[in-house]
Amino acid sequence: MNIYLHDIPLPEAQARFAAALQSAGLWGVLGFETIPLDEHACGRVLAESVWAKISSPHYHASAMDGFAVRAEETEGANPSAPIMLSTYHDSQAVYLDTGDPLPAWASAVIPIENVEPLTDGDQPAVDPRRSTVIRIRSAVPPWSHVRPMGEDMVATQLVLPAGHTLRPVDLGAIAASGHDCVLVARRPRVAILPTGTELVPIGQPVMPGDIIEYNSLVLAAQVNAWGGEAVRFPIVPDDFQKIRSRVLEAARNIDLILLNAGSSAGSEDFSEGVVEELGEVLVHGVAVRPGHPVILGMLDVPMDKLDATRKKAKIPIIGVPGYPVSAALTGEIFVEPLLARWLGRQPNEPITVTATLTRKVTSPPGDDDYMRVIVGRVGEKLLAAPLTRGAGVISSLVRADGLVILPRGSQGESAGAEVTVRLYRSPADFERTIFTIGSHDISLDLLAQFLAARERRMASANVGSQGGLVALRRGEAHMAGSHLLDPVSGEYNLDAIHQYLPDVAVKVVALVGRQQGLIIQQDNPKNIHDLEDLVRSDVIFINRQRGAGTRVLLDYHLGLKGIAPETIRGYNQEEYTHLAVAAAVASRRTDCGLGIAAAAQALNLGFIPLFQERYDLVIPCIYARGDLLAPLFDVLHDAAFGRAVAKLPGYDITPMGKVVAEIG
Amino acid sequence: MNIYLHDIPLPEAQARFAAALQSAGLWGVLGFETIPLDEHACGRVLAESVWAKISSPHYHASAMDGFAVRAEETEGANPSAPIMLSTYHDSQAVYLDTGDPLPAWASAVIPIENVEPLTDGDQPAVDPRRSTVIRIRSAVPPWSHVRPMGEDMVATQLVLPAGHTLRPVDLGAIAASGHDCVLVARRPRVAILPTGTELVPIGQPVMPGDIIEYNSLVLAAQVNAWGGEAVRFPIVPDDFQKIRSRVLEAARNIDLILLNAGSSAGSEDFSEGVVEELGEVLVHGVAVRPGHPVILGMLDVPMDKLDATRKKAKIPIIGVPGYPVSAALTGEIFVEPLLARWLGRQPNEPITVTATLTRKVTSPPGDDDYMRVIVGRVGEKLLAAPLTRGAGVISSLVRADGLVILPRGSQGESAGAEVTVRLYRSPADFERTIFTIGSHDISLDLLAQFLAARERRMASANVGSQGGLVALRRGEAHMAGSHLLDPVSGEYNLDAIHQYLPDVAVKVVALVGRQQGLIIQQDNPKNIHDLEDLVRSDVIFINRQRGAGTRVLLDYHLGLKGIAPETIRGYNQEEYTHLAVAAAVASRRTDCGLGIAAAAQALNLGFIPLFQERYDLVIPCIYARGDLLAPLFDVLHDAAFGRAVAKLPGYDITPMGKVVAEIG
Repeated sequence: MNIYLHDIPLPEAQARFAAALQSAGLWGVLGFETIPLDEHACGRVLAESVWAKISSPHYHASAMDGFAVRAEETEGANPSAPIMLSTYHDSQAVYLDTGDPLPAWASAVIPIENVEPLTDGDQPAVDPRRSTVIRIRSAVPPWSHVRPMGEDMVATQLVLPAGHTLRPVDLGAIAASGHDCVLVARRPRVAILPTGTELVPIGQPVMPGDIIEYNSLVLAAQVNAWGGEAVRFPIVPDDFQKIRSRVLEAARNIDLILLNAGSSAGSEDFSEGVVEELGEVLVHGVAVRPGHPVILGMLDVPMDKLDATRKKAKIPIIGVPGYPVSAALTGEIFVEPLLARWLGRQPNEPITVTATLTRKVTSPPGDDDYMRVIVGRVGEKLLAAPLTRGAGVISSLVRADGLVILPRGSQGESAGAEVTVRLYRSPADFERTIFTIGSHDISLDLLAQFLAARERRMASANVGSQGGLVALRRGEAHMAGSHLLDPVSGEYNLDAIHQYLPDVAVKVVALVGRQQGLIIQQDNPKNIHDLEDLVRSDVIFINRQRGAGTRVLLDYHLGLKGIAPETIRGYNQEEYTHLAVAAAVASRRTDCGLGIAAAAQALNLGFIPLFQERYDLVIPCIYARGDLLAPLFDVLHDAAFGRAVAKLPGYDITPMGKVVAEIG
Repeated sequence: MNIYLHDIPLPEAQARFAAALQSAGLWGVLGFETIPLDEHACGRVLAESVWAKISSPHYHASAMDGFAVRAEETEGANPSAPIMLSTYHDSQAVYLDTGDPLPAWASAVIPIENVEPLTDGDQPAVDPRRSTVIRIRSAVPPWSHVRPMGEDMVATQLVLPAGHTLRPVDLGAIAASGHDCVLVARRPRVAILPTGTELVPIGQPVMPGDIIEYNSLVLAAQVNAWGGEAVRFPIVPDDFQKIRSRVLEAARNIDLILLNAGSSAGSEDFSEGVVEELGEVLVHGVAVRPGHPVILGMLDVPMDKLDATRKKAKIPIIGVPGYPVSAALTGEIFVEPLLARWLGRQPNEPITVTATLTRKVTSPPGDDDYMRVIVGRVGEKLLAAPLTRGAGVISSLVRADGLVILPRGSQGESAGAEVTVRLYRSPADFERTIFTIGSHDISLDLLAQFLAARERRMASANVGSQGGLVALRRGEAHMAGSHLLDPVSGEYNLDAIHQYLPDVAVKVVALVGRQQGLIIQQDNPKNIHDLEDLVRSDVIFINRQRGAGTRVLLDYHLGLKGIAPETIRGYNQEEYTHLAVAAAVASRRTDCGLGIAAAAQALNLGFIPLFQERYDLVIPCIYARGDLLAPLFDVLHDAAFGRAVAKLPGYDITPMGKVVAEIG
């Protein structure tokens, strides 16, 4: 068994794939089709340039409602010496609506508001079309208020080049130039084949070991968004023959096959073998992270296995890695450019911005490393905050505002480095992003939801209370959530603010009061009741990270009770959020942890309330006064928000919105 | 008849419309629907926030192919003192594929590449699953290579907020968090009603006065792109009762009606009357250009005219102006924000850039003036070149890279002013835009087409040969097309370059040789044969603008022949391109003009060849050497391009690509 992949650099992998596609005659537009020029043509890619068949306008048209005249007959008219023009038999003037053709004898139009339409008795005509004479008080130059033939487009001129993706206005221009259909590139058909005995379809109950199959959903939506036509197949178990049959079944009338997953080199990874048997493996392993176990191959399908309409026996196949982030990035890196080529359009080019990295990151020097980041503007600085690098964390792609590529050869970047971010979002979004950092509280999710309804986006990073204050000092957030108990004063946060933010004027606003206690199994099998139980040898604890307010609270109370931390099993095991602590308990990985009641309830766990504490928002005054955060203060005084938070167990909304202090 | 509209400022118009929608209960999401979580959910807008139903992963999963072990049993292992772990009855180690659940007794995974799987006889096991013992040479900390339950998402946490437009990765995250369907906003149904006796459907032959009806196509494609569901109705003639019936017919099961056109105050404009009879006219005339004759109204439809499922008798209606640019902008200004509100999403916010205006523009101070511009980067400067302001010129919206809004109160901007451009394109496109200015030649359309296939976009402005050289001097273009004859030397362009570009190093490259001559009616009814005929009293000429090479050529030959320009009827009538001159002749607005043979042939006109001339590209050396223009030189030496140009009548491709001079 081949357990090691020999990853090759991305450009080389791309070059091998391109060469194979070229020699198979699959390196250009796959096919054309003529479609009617209707609204469904929007988004299609022109297969040939569009040239105007007729001019637009195709005749001289009045540009206004008014009277067509001979310009020379208006010469000399002025306010004190008006000129009268007869409409009798259209001899000197004729009324035209906008768009009407100019009579052959006329050379200009006078807008209705510049003439006096009169009847025979020199009375104002109620309907200008019935006027028998018009009085004008100024001359008009030739061709005034006329849209000459071809003003918009002249027959034979280029309207749009081949390769252009049609937008709504393009459809109008093509229609105006005399066409009623367009020749566009055929949409490439892409088969998506999920494989894996452990996979279950969306919507079915799951047992440990079951994995919900959603990569095919993400890949299909990507393919459709990029102009292809995705065809999702049912799940195939890890069985060489079944996978082989499915690949042949899909190949019948398809342009590209995405085989997901089994592209690595594990005992149940059959993709390489199947591709090898049905064609050629061009690449197995690409030096990108996440997503290195990619297979690029070319099938050579017997013609009798293909639909009669198909002329090529060569069908490219991509073995897509199984981790969801890897799968989605494989789509972006390999599938999108191929679809662009097959459609004859430019590949998507992300908008890039330069941003400042908020923390040091390391990178394997052998790989192009695709790092997800959140982007936000804090003061003058555009910041990029790295998200988790885990290939299994699809939520990190959901939260990501963009990607930073740490190229092959780079060992990482230091905090404060300028990096190029390939954006997933419009830069306009960053101007309404509230960058929040610090301690995690469940009510922040509700806050994010209420802010979203007020045109603000909350991007948050959980680094603990102290970490949040440090970030504020570095100018890297608009606000920090904090619940740092001062053991001496018994007050929250003020002491720490004096220590960490001596030079920053801040406003401290209470968000909630909340209960902290021990999160335990539902039935409390270990019979845990207080901090003293943590030192028992049969009890495993899970801690929060250094700098977390909850850890400060724990250490304070351990001190009061004279309990030495090193006597607690698991004291050095750290999680970064209340929910993560609860999840650790729920999975029976540990017996208990200190956290908030809401986290325990969320996962249907037991809870032993121990302490009441206050959770504040610390906001530098320059932001507290600005437009960006104004909706935050609305939300803090919105009764609906209060009610939503009050429903969380162990929450006290009495202090909500109260200004605890203004410092500096 | 009300022939004057009293335009009100845009914010006031929007406020009146909003107030009416609010009081009709139509100022929020119109309705919800539950749809399956499949790839077609992409692009839909979440009607409620999605909270995780299950954690992801929902169990502790192996993150690698490897062996699950108890971390404490690996303590002390090192290269010289390996530890053996038995797989007998899974007592100490068990093989797991990536994604397999961790056994309850295990606390870490050792990747396959870090163990030696052995069989009973201490032989390497071919299949690790069959190994009876594993040898390890280093310890692993607890939870190594394990994806703990909830690593991605923890049950109850916010996955995505309401109002979010679903992207491919979002679908994956929603599936991973245990959902199989989503509640999304119902797509608003928008009826589009074209009205006008002069309208003919796309694809039918047109006579003078006929207007191809394509506004409904553009509006429908816009509505669909913005998340609505467009319903196009057939054309209704200008007849009050027929329009009224059609509006009632459309109202039956629709959320918004777009009535196009008849929204002005002309004799055939019935929109206002129909809205007034069926409801209330809120606004008639908005101070925006183009597009001021907008009607905003609210219908009050008898309940018996509505489908049983509808609960509201109030249906908003927008009278959309008839000019295509006005219609498309009305969509952007009024329809898109309303659809955004009905879908519960943020309105589209364009990306903006700051650019330098290339020429002075004036603006009616009473209006918000939406000016279309082309944007390109030339050297360090991002330039915005204004396009025609005509409301009938749909091709200007096609060519536009963005809009500059000259606000109410502004009388315009001077050349060189910094303006904010709301972009229609990605800023990435500007880095591959070749800004071309100067004289117009038909082969430039072919050049644009060939460059498009080489990832370059040619944006061109026709200002004549001299205008092009002046633009190069100001650093406002990458190249200029020029055919300026020097009367003394008989050479082209070099003299003018010395005069206009004394300080700019340029490369002069020949594009084509071409014939200039008189463009005349097909049957030459005026019996025109040479320049001498232009002074005849029965002959009307049309000229090119000052600074055009063709005009220099004309003046040179008039001088040689001793013909005084003022003796030529129409000498002062100017057009800006060869095709525009030909169009003027084709429409019989004039009898003849000087231009190129291709323009005459394009419009099926007669042509009297008079002179042979050379048309060059003048390229500053800094750009001639750069990457941006490299594909241009490829095209000039591409035989396929030469063949395409040679097919144009009167073209000589012998000089194509020849370097005429390098100056400075």
